[in-house]
Amino acid sequence: MKRTSLSGAPCPIARSLDELGDWWTLLIVREALRGARRFSDFQKKLGLARNILSARLKQMVANGLFEQRPAIEGGARAEYHLTDKGMRLRLVMAALRQWGEDNLFEGEQSSTVLVETATGRPIGRLQLTSEDGRPLRVDEVSIASRIPGE
Amino acid sequence: MKRTSLSGAPCPIARSLDELGDWWTLLIVREALRGARRFSDFQKKLGLARNILSARLKQMVANGLFEQRPAIEGGARAEYHLTDKGMRLRLVMAALRQWGEDNLFEGEQSSTVLVETATGRPIGRLQLTSEDGRPLRVDEVSIASRIPGE
Repeated sequence: MKRTSLSGAPCPIARSLDELGDWWTLLIVREALRGARRFSDFQKKLGLARNILSARLKQMVANGLFEQRPAIEGGARAEYHLTDKGMRLRLVMAALRQWGEDNLFEGEQSSTVLVETATGRPIGRLQLTSEDGRPLRVDEVSIASRIPGE
Repeated sequence: MKRTSLSGAPCPIARSLDELGDWWTLLIVREALRGARRFSDFQKKLGLARNILSARLKQMVANGLFEQRPAIEGGARAEYHLTDKGMRLRLVMAALRQWGEDNLFEGEQSSTVLVETATGRPIGRLQLTSEDGRPLRVDEVSIASRIPGE
């Protein structure tokens, strides 16, 4: 099925989803956040076919999520490093993680946890808030049209 | 390509992505958050083929994201209402929206904005925080294995 491009959509959610392409992109970002740098790291961790992984990494470089750098230890192969734009997906990943933990685990616990690197303590829950920082429930929020010029 | 099921994965991100299936699920949730209830609402807004939309809604009901209720005005067709589990995707959507606004809009503004319903004011930015509420940058956070029993 040919996918409609949403890259010019006025809705930022649609644009984000268009840019991210499919779930593999976020799973590749997850591995990068866990320290994967080389093609073979990603391939081993994700078990993704080489041609698909290759095309996906190429697209992610083109979209500015990864930049390629020479391997630190030398060697012929470049490494893939997340750009700032790629790193900022951490918040999206954290939101997906929290939703999964809250809704898709029954009894058991997830095997990993997001921690503050400096202290090793689990991070706080993500929370919708008002402009001035009051916590808001998900049903206290709605989508409004932006008034031009505001 | 046959997709590997990640529904039993220990990683909550993988489980979430498996449950959400593909981007259409989140775009359907977006329309529901904007007030769509009837099959024809979703179909009109998303321009998705009827058979694909129908299969997707059925799956979303099976996964507990939507519940079907009789239409308020009567009539033969049921309406689709987000469950609490579905509503909690609001936070994931807010994270995707914020990432899109920060990274995929150049100059222009997105056409819509998330507001606190009661005040009509834009909500605050989502922010990673420590356990005790200090703001954390995306590079101050890492993934750790959970120690069983902790």
